[in-house]
Amino acid sequence: MTLNIGKEFMEKTKYQYLDETDQQKGLPQPPLELEYDSNSTIIDLPSVENIEVKNIDLREAIQERKSLRKYSDKPLTIEELSYLLWCTQGVKRIVSRPATIRTVPSAGARHSFETYLLINRVDGIKPGIYRYLAIEHKLIEINTEANIGEKVAHSCCRQMFIADSGVTFIWSTVIYRMKWRYGERGYRYVHLDAGHVCQNLYLAAQSIDCGVCAIGAFDDDELNKLIGLDGEEQFVVYLATVGKR
Amino acid sequence: MTLNIGKEFMEKTKYQYLDETDQQKGLPQPPLELEYDSNSTIIDLPSVENIEVKNIDLREAIQERKSLRKYSDKPLTIEELSYLLWCTQGVKRIVSRPATIRTVPSAGARHSFETYLLINRVDGIKPGIYRYLAIEHKLIEINTEANIGEKVAHSCCRQMFIADSGVTFIWSTVIYRMKWRYGERGYRYVHLDAGHVCQNLYLAAQSIDCGVCAIGAFDDDELNKLIGLDGEEQFVVYLATVGKR
Repeated sequence: MTLNIGKEFMEKTKYQYLDETDQQKGLPQPPLELEYDSNSTIIDLPSVENIEVKNIDLREAIQERKSLRKYSDKPLTIEELSYLLWCTQGVKRIVSRPATIRTVPSAGARHSFETYLLINRVDGIKPGIYRYLAIEHKLIEINTEANIGEKVAHSCCRQMFIADSGVTFIWSTVIYRMKWRYGERGYRYVHLDAGHVCQNLYLAAQSIDCGVCAIGAFDDDELNKLIGLDGEEQFVVYLATVGKR
Repeated sequence: MTLNIGKEFMEKTKYQYLDETDQQKGLPQPPLELEYDSNSTIIDLPSVENIEVKNIDLREAIQERKSLRKYSDKPLTIEELSYLLWCTQGVKRIVSRPATIRTVPSAGARHSFETYLLINRVDGIKPGIYRYLAIEHKLIEINTEANIGEKVAHSCCRQMFIADSGVTFIWSTVIYRMKWRYGERGYRYVHLDAGHVCQNLYLAAQSIDCGVCAIGAFDDDELNKLIGLDGEEQFVVYLATVGKR
């Protein structure tokens, strides 16, 4: 019964059919990022200004990009992880609307993503799932149960190389951040936004001798559950593995 | 009546609900690009290997990227346009599946896009709408009627800076190229793919002193009609303006 749902979605998210949005109704906008419990385990990330990475010409990076699914055992450093998080979701400043201005664009600067990381091999960080606190540039521990890498890999249609990645980026959306302004059309925009983010990851990884593979095939229910997302207000949009060459 | 179409789309494109795809049924895959009439006006693009652009450090490009909606009157050169097309959809080679390997990733190397250009100010090219022949690295003239720039701008919720851009990239999908392999979930993937492409445009534009602004707000019917797309088998997914600083 999924026949034609894509066509129906495109049709019903045409501008002429959109309902009045919550923004138009004068409702307050949602917070810029999820709350977090400051009693949880929080990991400071090194400041990006002090992180040195290999200079790489943009054109060469674009030209040479390709997906990599096989990684060496070498771990990433926490500096390298910090750099990748900055390049994909780094908050440059907060403007008065309020909105975050980041290293990537987002429709209406809504920036609906929360980045979760499956960390398998990053120096000094216990394997597990973490959430990136973009505004604070820190990580918060979410789930460090045994074999979490295998479980995430299993939820992604058994693409087991996920469990062998150094780190896998998991971009989830807090969809109301986008819907508040754009209504149902916001579901298009979170996917467009995620592509922007993932392309930066592909390119930035090249300056730290890493390869990347984007992943769109996953069991939504199984993966959302592993991360602790309800699958309706918050859900995974896209993933990408990273690992040393 | 558009209430909850986004949620319904996400639900019904979960892997467990997908029907057997045409690929799984053994149906032949669609061609890698649209046919074209070789009697039409076709413009050769200069080969990218011979095009010099400013060296720019990847990290700096990511850090400095921001949307630009106001452009100078200075036109782009055809070399610069060729470079941008290469960075966004350039075909590096054709492999035997067959599939194109491009400068950007695409789910399953499906590469469902056809790039249309609204050309307003590119040296030596008459203003109008053109299609990029990615495999041939050429342009084919589609529509050079008067005031086409204003018409495209009008179709994009009257974002009139589109008519003042040097060139506006319009990414349309031939959705069956994606659906053949992924069924209805392919509608997610074409949006993810488009974000990848647009991020490369943002970054590459910086090496030729241009700014970019991504556009997701458009009247689907009006815009598809201007370009000559039926809106079901082929439709616009995303746009971005480019212009000299």
